[in-house]
Amino acid sequence: MKLSFDLDHIGIAVSSLDTGSEFYKKLGFSEMKTETVASESVKVGFLPMGNDCSIELLEPTSSESPIAKFLDKRGPGIHHICLRVKNIEQVAKSLSSQGVRLINEVPRPGAHNCKVVFVHPKSTGGILLELSEKVEDLDAK
Amino acid sequence: MKLSFDLDHIGIAVSSLDTGSEFYKKLGFSEMKTETVASESVKVGFLPMGNDCSIELLEPTSSESPIAKFLDKRGPGIHHICLRVKNIEQVAKSLSSQGVRLINEVPRPGAHNCKVVFVHPKSTGGILLELSEKVEDLDAK
Repeated sequence: MKLSFDLDHIGIAVSSLDTGSEFYKKLGFSEMKTETVASESVKVGFLPMGNDCSIELLEPTSSESPIAKFLDKRGPGIHHICLRVKNIEQVAKSLSSQGVRLINEVPRPGAHNCKVVFVHPKSTGGILLELSEKVEDLDAK
Repeated sequence: MKLSFDLDHIGIAVSSLDTGSEFYKKLGFSEMKTETVASESVKVGFLPMGNDCSIELLEPTSSESPIAKFLDKRGPGIHHICLRVKNIEQVAKSLSSQGVRLINEVPRPGAHNCKVVFVHPKSTGGILLELSEKVEDLDAK
């Protein structure tokens, strides 16, 4: 089976969405939708790109947010990248069986009605990598 | 005019393409094309994704390579991101006129027959950002 991976987004830690989006506005991005993800204590600004992926600016809403800790330690910059996959449970099991360190072995709910698994930077070569799969809305069928 | 931006690639600094690609092979990426870019003293491994963008692993081929210096200072990780644009000269002028610091004001030749401009992390919020435009091959017309 040939697998396919799509880039979903690049997550960028910013002190505030206002200052963090300044450069992208100068570049010509005209649209930024925002969403608060209470469970992660972040406010997210989505900058959509043409090829079905986006830049996501991440502003912490509390000092306990992982993004606040990242900013304290590293300053603003790329926090993670996210790839869309199919059969995320199988992908997670396959990685785990090959010795890849997952932050959560069991997919957990993420933004946009997705299930997500985070892979530890120790196993990827220094990058926090998110894997994401859209959840079918069974109730709607 | 509504501008559009596509993500072209995420550039990741690795000590070697072999070790740097291990995780992606475990994830299921089956194809990696390689290319040496002598002018940048790097060997590049392309991992194509489904939505017309790629992960590019960057292995230094000399201790003078910018990637070697990045690895010495920061270790393996994301080195830059690259967005495809149209009218790169105009985009560069527009950014410059808005006080954005460009590493090269005049587009220079990059890989894949492209013209590229690098934007300094000081102006983007901590990210080395590459802008790229495919050069039309006028000789072929």
